[in-house]
Amino acid sequence: MTSLFAPPTPGRTPDPSLAHRRANATLTLQQPDGTPLADTDVTVEQTRHTFLFANIAEDFLATAQTSTAGDVPQNRVELLDGESPQDWADRVEALWHDVYNAGTLQFYWGSFEPERGAPRTEPMRRLAQRYRDRGTVLKGHPLVWHTVCAPWLLDEPVDEIERLQRERIRRDVAEFAGLVDMWDVINEVVIMPVFDKEDNGITRLARERGRIEMIRMGFEESRATNPTATLLLNDFDMSTAYECLIEGVLEAGITIDRLGLQSHMHQGYWGEEKTLDVLDRFSRYGIPIHFTETTLLSGDPMPAHIKDLNDYAPATWPSTEEGEQRQADELVRHHRTLLSHPSVEAATYWGLTDAGMWLGAPGGLVRADGTPKPAYDAFRDLVKGSGGTARRRTGPMAMAACGSRGSWATTGFRPVARRRRCRWTSPGPP
Amino acid sequence: MTSLFAPPTPGRTPDPSLAHRRANATLTLQQPDGTPLADTDVTVEQTRHTFLFANIAEDFLATAQTSTAGDVPQNRVELLDGESPQDWADRVEALWHDVYNAGTLQFYWGSFEPERGAPRTEPMRRLAQRYRDRGTVLKGHPLVWHTVCAPWLLDEPVDEIERLQRERIRRDVAEFAGLVDMWDVINEVVIMPVFDKEDNGITRLARERGRIEMIRMGFEESRATNPTATLLLNDFDMSTAYECLIEGVLEAGITIDRLGLQSHMHQGYWGEEKTLDVLDRFSRYGIPIHFTETTLLSGDPMPAHIKDLNDYAPATWPSTEEGEQRQADELVRHHRTLLSHPSVEAATYWGLTDAGMWLGAPGGLVRADGTPKPAYDAFRDLVKGSGGTARRRTGPMAMAACGSRGSWATTGFRPVARRRRCRWTSPGPP
Repeated sequence: MTSLFAPPTPGRTPDPSLAHRRANATLTLQQPDGTPLADTDVTVEQTRHTFLFANIAEDFLATAQTSTAGDVPQNRVELLDGESPQDWADRVEALWHDVYNAGTLQFYWGSFEPERGAPRTEPMRRLAQRYRDRGTVLKGHPLVWHTVCAPWLLDEPVDEIERLQRERIRRDVAEFAGLVDMWDVINEVVIMPVFDKEDNGITRLARERGRIEMIRMGFEESRATNPTATLLLNDFDMSTAYECLIEGVLEAGITIDRLGLQSHMHQGYWGEEKTLDVLDRFSRYGIPIHFTETTLLSGDPMPAHIKDLNDYAPATWPSTEEGEQRQADELVRHHRTLLSHPSVEAATYWGLTDAGMWLGAPGGLVRADGTPKPAYDAFRDLVKGSGGTARRRTGPMAMAACGSRGSWATTGFRPVARRRRCRWTSPGPP
Repeated sequence: MTSLFAPPTPGRTPDPSLAHRRANATLTLQQPDGTPLADTDVTVEQTRHTFLFANIAEDFLATAQTSTAGDVPQNRVELLDGESPQDWADRVEALWHDVYNAGTLQFYWGSFEPERGAPRTEPMRRLAQRYRDRGTVLKGHPLVWHTVCAPWLLDEPVDEIERLQRERIRRDVAEFAGLVDMWDVINEVVIMPVFDKEDNGITRLARERGRIEMIRMGFEESRATNPTATLLLNDFDMSTAYECLIEGVLEAGITIDRLGLQSHMHQGYWGEEKTLDVLDRFSRYGIPIHFTETTLLSGDPMPAHIKDLNDYAPATWPSTEEGEQRQADELVRHHRTLLSHPSVEAATYWGLTDAGMWLGAPGGLVRADGTPKPAYDAFRDLVKGSGGTARRRTGPMAMAACGSRGSWATTGFRPVARRRRCRWTSPGPP
């Protein structure tokens, strides 16, 4: 057990020009017979960002069919005239895939296996496959957590809870290997052993074993089951508490692949200064960062005196016109800030539509009727604009492209993924 | 490196009756020739508590002579008519020793060795000896801290700062062994690497090495130099951050003898509920607790919006009559709460007189003119009353005494320290 703590790494200076997100590529275009393709119009288009723009990988048809999540009016799906739930789901799903290349699948133990021994593996596999078929990078969330916890753990002594938790990790990580190769292994460990809102088996275990052994358990089992998976530690506590936890974990020799930093902003946008401060403090461990679970409201903010966000439940919490403009502005500023920091690899927004939004908050980028809010359009511009499409006439032998790191394609050609040098083996339609 | 984390220990239930603080002793009284001392009046008196009632071990004469600490009026010593600084110091020192059996010596590196290579060892040794001569248990505070830090460290690279810090620990722990066998090894590590009020060598080092290696450094050097010393980790952060830090330290195999929990209450008394919550959370590690650095004001509280207490500097901050009554009530409640929790071994108040009080706050138990506030008297009643004096007539062969754990004596006899069975070898005057 050797300490993995390392002094703060260089190269963590934010750069608002986003130069570090771009790459230059020189493309040599060839005819099928290998001769240079000269003096031809080609269209080069970004098909995928290296940066992960993520949201919850949701089963939109299920959302549309049940339409009952939450007691808050705007939390219910609103079908347009004559529209079926399938139509609504198709519309929203198309919006999802138009901007996101990564999705978070919700594997809460209490909802995934509400009855012991009957995990909902098959519906989850179908959902995962549906996203993977579109090329979405998937992350499972979470394997260990004290909330939405399997209630039947409470019947067991602590040693058995640990055995069941280890078994659950091995089972689900193995079942989904290949489909889901990224996991929020353990969630909100800072509060885990002192969480007192609801008695649950995981808090009992965490109190007995300590935070670090809980993390070790999660990472060891996950790593052993899927050695190539990307494993995250995720928390909402942005204070020194999370720093202290991370330093303990590194000192204990546990390898964390990525750090997850939650950012529910129900009480107001953090702003650039706070966000950059958080990034400065947490990037110093040299672990790439996923900014997870971002929420920005298009309605009134939650009052500042609320400490546990779950304690706030207004009868109605409408999206307002003014709020929608503010949300659009803040969403773009937030993503620009994250993109400016070289340590950030992913930004996960927490829900696409107001329908079924956590806490009934008007935090969706799309209204409950499936129409985009200004924030969606602004975000789409950001995602598309940072890569985008370029029409170029090739020179005698080559062309240069410059854009966001990721995958690029020419229209009608097969997507190409080599960053520095791309080859087209067949010309396509103009 | 084996983890020292252990599941929460039992026996941590608060008991307001303070039964756990009392012991029964059966005394067999003998004549000098060994025959039983029967049917005689004896007075049994508590001379010392096992519980440590502590305050800063201050050089009162120096305070009276300089009398300039702070710009706040009530922070200056007020001599009574015709009184010399020595008279004031004698009065206040007598008040100190009448209630405290333990003292904290201030070893801040920046004031102890403001000039490199010229530590103020001799004056400190005289001060320590003065307290030890009265039987006071002494603790040095602190060996490693980022505030009141030696400014000349800033001229050195990080490796040299570490070498100097290790050297400083070995030097001072060795110099004072026998006089000072208890140390706040390291102070406020939670904030140490992100402290940004003032550039200093220790924050630089902590950022490079990480919190846990800072703690390991402090404890290893202290332990190696004085293996019998009692070594504390001390912090003001009562949030989960300190819990996370402690769990990392235990996981890293570092032995912490006592946990120090600071409790400056410039913004208002915590009350029983918060205090017991803090004790419940921090006592679960099975490490005995010292409640350190308590301040309770006899004037207006500091506004709640102040985050760093150092940021508040009113022109005057008077002690008020109403405030003095409140302080007396809160001081007794605070100590009763600490005494009720079996894990607490010590309670350290942070300053005796308003003269020279940190931040110029009216937090002394004695006014700047050396007269006791109601809080002092109430505290004295608590300390004396919990042990006190008992006059008993012995039975034919023995007598039973019941009181606070500690040392007891009969009037005119030498103090006896055996808890369960005490012997007097000579009768004294009645």
